[in-house]
Amino acid sequence: MLGLDKTGWIEKPRPTCGPLDAIVRPLALAPCTSDIHTVWEGAIGDRHNLVLGHEGVGEVVEVGDMVKVFKPGDRVIMPAITPDWGSLEAQSGYSVHSGGMLGGWKFSNSKDGVFAEFIHINEADANLALLPDGIEPETGAMLSDMVPTGLHGSELAGVKYGDDVCVIGIGPVGLMAVRGAVLRGAANLFAVGTRPNCVQVARSFGATDIISYKEGPLHDQILDRTNGKGVDRVIIAGGDNDTFDTAIRMLKPGGAIGNINYLGSGDYIKIPREAWGVGMGHKTIHGGLMPGGRLRMEKLAQLVLTGRVDPSQLITHRFEGLEHVEDAVMLMKDKPADLIKPVVSIRY
Amino acid sequence: MLGLDKTGWIEKPRPTCGPLDAIVRPLALAPCTSDIHTVWEGAIGDRHNLVLGHEGVGEVVEVGDMVKVFKPGDRVIMPAITPDWGSLEAQSGYSVHSGGMLGGWKFSNSKDGVFAEFIHINEADANLALLPDGIEPETGAMLSDMVPTGLHGSELAGVKYGDDVCVIGIGPVGLMAVRGAVLRGAANLFAVGTRPNCVQVARSFGATDIISYKEGPLHDQILDRTNGKGVDRVIIAGGDNDTFDTAIRMLKPGGAIGNINYLGSGDYIKIPREAWGVGMGHKTIHGGLMPGGRLRMEKLAQLVLTGRVDPSQLITHRFEGLEHVEDAVMLMKDKPADLIKPVVSIRY
Amino acid sequence: MLGLDKTGWIEKPRPTCGPLDAIVRPLALAPCTSDIHTVWEGAIGDRHNLVLGHEGVGEVVEVGDMVKVFKPGDRVIMPAITPDWGSLEAQSGYSVHSGGMLGGWKFSNSKDGVFAEFIHINEADANLALLPDGIEPETGAMLSDMVPTGLHGSELAGVKYGDDVCVIGIGPVGLMAVRGAVLRGAANLFAVGTRPNCVQVARSFGATDIISYKEGPLHDQILDRTNGKGVDRVIIAGGDNDTFDTAIRMLKPGGAIGNINYLGSGDYIKIPREAWGVGMGHKTIHGGLMPGGRLRMEKLAQLVLTGRVDPSQLITHRFEGLEHVEDAVMLMKDKPADLIKPVVSIRY
Amino acid sequence: MLGLDKTGWIEKPRPTCGPLDAIVRPLALAPCTSDIHTVWEGAIGDRHNLVLGHEGVGEVVEVGDMVKVFKPGDRVIMPAITPDWGSLEAQSGYSVHSGGMLGGWKFSNSKDGVFAEFIHINEADANLALLPDGIEPETGAMLSDMVPTGLHGSELAGVKYGDDVCVIGIGPVGLMAVRGAVLRGAANLFAVGTRPNCVQVARSFGATDIISYKEGPLHDQILDRTNGKGVDRVIIAGGDNDTFDTAIRMLKPGGAIGNINYLGSGDYIKIPREAWGVGMGHKTIHGGLMPGGRLRMEKLAQLVLTGRVDPSQLITHRFEGLEHVEDAVMLMKDKPADLIKPVVSIRY
Repeated sequence: MLGLDKTGWIEKPRPTCGPLDAIVRPLALAPCTSDIHTVWEGAIGDRHNLVLGHEGVGEVVEVGDMVKVFKPGDRVIMPAITPDWGSLEAQSGYSVHSGGMLGGWKFSNSKDGVFAEFIHINEADANLALLPDGIEPETGAMLSDMVPTGLHGSELAGVKYGDDVCVIGIGPVGLMAVRGAVLRGAANLFAVGTRPNCVQVARSFGATDIISYKEGPLHDQILDRTNGKGVDRVIIAGGDNDTFDTAIRMLKPGGAIGNINYLGSGDYIKIPREAWGVGMGHKTIHGGLMPGGRLRMEKLAQLVLTGRVDPSQLITHRFEGLEHVEDAVMLMKDKPADLIKPVVSIRY
Repeated sequence: MLGLDKTGWIEKPRPTCGPLDAIVRPLALAPCTSDIHTVWEGAIGDRHNLVLGHEGVGEVVEVGDMVKVFKPGDRVIMPAITPDWGSLEAQSGYSVHSGGMLGGWKFSNSKDGVFAEFIHINEADANLALLPDGIEPETGAMLSDMVPTGLHGSELAGVKYGDDVCVIGIGPVGLMAVRGAVLRGAANLFAVGTRPNCVQVARSFGATDIISYKEGPLHDQILDRTNGKGVDRVIIAGGDNDTFDTAIRMLKPGGAIGNINYLGSGDYIKIPREAWGVGMGHKTIHGGLMPGGRLRMEKLAQLVLTGRVDPSQLITHRFEGLEHVEDAVMLMKDKPADLIKPVVSIRY
Repeated sequence: MLGLDKTGWIEKPRPTCGPLDAIVRPLALAPCTSDIHTVWEGAIGDRHNLVLGHEGVGEVVEVGDMVKVFKPGDRVIMPAITPDWGSLEAQSGYSVHSGGMLGGWKFSNSKDGVFAEFIHINEADANLALLPDGIEPETGAMLSDMVPTGLHGSELAGVKYGDDVCVIGIGPVGLMAVRGAVLRGAANLFAVGTRPNCVQVARSFGATDIISYKEGPLHDQILDRTNGKGVDRVIIAGGDNDTFDTAIRMLKPGGAIGNINYLGSGDYIKIPREAWGVGMGHKTIHGGLMPGGRLRMEKLAQLVLTGRVDPSQLITHRFEGLEHVEDAVMLMKDKPADLIKPVVSIRY
Repeated sequence: MLGLDKTGWIEKPRPTCGPLDAIVRPLALAPCTSDIHTVWEGAIGDRHNLVLGHEGVGEVVEVGDMVKVFKPGDRVIMPAITPDWGSLEAQSGYSVHSGGMLGGWKFSNSKDGVFAEFIHINEADANLALLPDGIEPETGAMLSDMVPTGLHGSELAGVKYGDDVCVIGIGPVGLMAVRGAVLRGAANLFAVGTRPNCVQVARSFGATDIISYKEGPLHDQILDRTNGKGVDRVIIAGGDNDTFDTAIRMLKPGGAIGNINYLGSGDYIKIPREAWGVGMGHKTIHGGLMPGGRLRMEKLAQLVLTGRVDPSQLITHRFEGLEHVEDAVMLMKDKPADLIKPVVSIRY
């Protein structure tokens, strides 16, 4: 990112490696919709000469003096979120907000991202995870953001055995939210989306019903299919500020919303007063950025290795060579009908 | 309530007592702000010939065949919320929504209230609680709604040891919310209000700072007093739909709002997008009606008996005789400066 | 059950139906290991002329005056646990202990069980659930006890995404515990057992490793396979009081045990002091009887309908006719090598 | 500690200060019963030339290059537990077990303790907390271990509004457990102990009933006082392995034990099978070492500043000068009848 609406390559010095840090070179990289928000919507403000990207797998090329777990040559998953683990926020259980709200999101935000020859990792021992032998780097790159963000939806919404769940939006994050809800015990799973590729993967991941926003208000469709009862949980993985209106209307009292969608514009999220039980309906509204760090990456990698989650189904487009990252970004921007997620492989 | 804006006495037949039910005659009654909402704001729609009131202590005069715990002559607390305990919602942990959102709120809503000579109690064994000898009926009447609603604020907001808490609104419910937060481990407790009587009780209940909305936006005042950090929890016990805007702005990431305020008008509660972390700030929004039933009443009565909570401090005005209930209601409507809560005693 | 060690048929009057109750005739019945404990081990003391059985699907033949949801002709799942929903224990979230510890367990304990021509159901609206059309009665009978008990293991142990889990014992309950752990996000799942039939179903349900107690102490085997780290959760679905010793030793600090095994004899469960962190290791020990009631049955039935859980895989032996219940019980007592669970079908 | 049963002063080089570390000199120090266990019972094995002590307040004299929050001259609380915050265990929410069970307990265990002229603090920014101006150093020393350990009892046991709670043992930790339970909403609070000083402070902290183990089995006394119902929560802050037997027997189904007592000897904690509901009574057993670190210390200091907790009531004996630490240790060993807690002040 050179500036708003402008992308291109830029020469920067190789990052320096502090005592707790590591330097990594990329093996597989993936652009994210939020990269598009950043450049073309100015979602995080105007930035100049910021390296984009926060999803990838790489190889360690240098480690600091105090790094004990990793060494050059290790193949590692780089989480999109790399917190400061000693911060008060991390101590309170919210490492993702270390140093201030969303402070754990550093790549392509408060520091250069991963679309680079050399990538700086803070607190390497706490923030990297070994890529297991059975996972190819391209699949591993889905563990940086798509898998943890998607699965966080069910953690936020509190899915329990036998719950009926609606997942609004089945882009790559929403698809992982579908899979995540099944792996927390969802029974009927209503997935909202229309793109055929996505619908197919949603079914493969365990969606029982596909809902199209073109067929009328979502809450009317959900209430129709649930005898007027609504669902126990709603995971919001797409849409905008107004999506909360329909989400509240389709939710049972005692239910919860888990928002994992980046809300890029507008002043206010609107919560409908009456459907929210005049403030007293016990319809809880959660929203949160994915947890990052080494433990999370290791656990998710085990979910892939044991076959519980198959994020390779997200990958629809593949490129070879670091120089094709820009093509992948532009593909993400253009969103052809058959796109779910592109990935770029780098060989040395 | 004869109709919108009209109150008066009405003759009705004595309610019939089903096999699980009880009939109670009142010993102490208290009007609630929500009675005012019901009559003069039409908050629950136009109602005709509805008996008002949902706070009181009484004496059992009749019980159904299947009632085992209570017998005529027992002095009992009547909770404002009297759920159907076998309902699916009760089984899911939300008895207050039994049979549908807010369905556990029956008195002066879906059936006649307690401002009557004879009061019908559904599922008496599950919904009444013995008034312990050490609690006078007038204080006991505060256990119907003021205490459980106030304390529910901290349950919703999840107050923990050492948390900084802001309680917005220090009417009788907000005051109990102050006390409730102290009894969950709050450290600094910012209470928002201006009426001298209320301020005095707030301090007596454990508020450390008093904030006035007249001194500027609440979140600016809170951020000033917390080095820009904000508070861990906000309990909303007053204000309106816009109160959530300032509440979100004063809240730390990872914090939570517990709303116990009845939101009487307007279409939408407004959640500010940026201050809510563009959907990802882990600022959770809870809102819920108080839990009712026998167990809750018994536990709260023990809190009074052991001196943890002293709801008698809420009572500023006392009347004698059932015929003075209307005076008490009108006092509640007029809200003189020195009013916190009126109560009516009935002797036989 | 005629007395200790004696079974046989007995004539009893048809049970009477109270206002909230229903009378059901059986369509499918299954004996449970706990029936064996009751008769041949005297686990709940000496009982005379007690009708056994607490797993079954039936048809409603009579309902009380106050029953609204069910009517004669309805095909229903009968949960093993049928609580009193208005009890204080139910109000506290533990309906299974209504009226006293384990008080929700009535069938073949505090009242006659389901191996009868006519079965009495207390609080029918709260305790029965419609059998959905897509589930055959024999499979539905697995929802009475096997599925809810097995899945409760993960609820007690608190399984989270990517956790490593050990399930000790893979009889029918342990097998459902395996499936339940997968549906809460378990990654590596170590199932302890040796019977080939059970091993095969455990793998089909998602076990990744099979451990045999014949190969040495379980904790040594688990520590070997986890680089000395141990597992995050242990579900105990077999063994005896001493099983907790090995379970604590294989558990990580911060982990938890969920016991769903009926402990039939011995005075003390033994928790090893040092491995339990001299009292300070945050290795939590949970144990609890399955939650029952209508909501739970409905949610589990949806898990079967949506294909998340397939309890029909448990059924290895089938009988036709109520008169063969005793054969099924004796089969359960003799435990041939290929037995997982027998079921008896009754046609009218 | 020179070796088992031997204490004395020893010369050691001043500890070196790593990039993340700090060196502190003591202002107030307190010995702990666990120091006695360590020396005279060999609870953590034979140790040679280990500096004892893990409770104290001091002044920073040196900080490492990467330390940002603290600087020489700052007066700080040193928590007994100083975790490695980047460890996997800390990421899982159990920083106290960083690097292995109990690994966050470093002082007088895996490294030299605080009874020294110069004290080494690992990860200073994450593990120290400023002593607020309103708290004297001697009171602040109670925040290292007594307050956080005592309050953790209620966190483990899950005290809720109106719960009946039994605290077994009212030494300094048990007394803080009493106060902690009141600050989580306990109603009736049964404190077990006999020493007059402790009984007086227990009452001042909010105990409603004092129970003596000399009057018969504790569970019999508790069941007598609760109409045979038992209590909702038991906090174990004294006794030994057998204390769990009586604790389980006095606990309601659905209740929980929170153990904060260091169990110094014996092979097994005994859980009585029948009273534990044959494994199915939902009587949960928790036990855990106190959470440490900066956030916890800051929050607890605010509880002291706001008057919620007054740990100065624990201090019964005061010494002046570092050279009197050994006197304080011997006093702790001898336990005179009027001792609760000694403290040593050091002036420069």
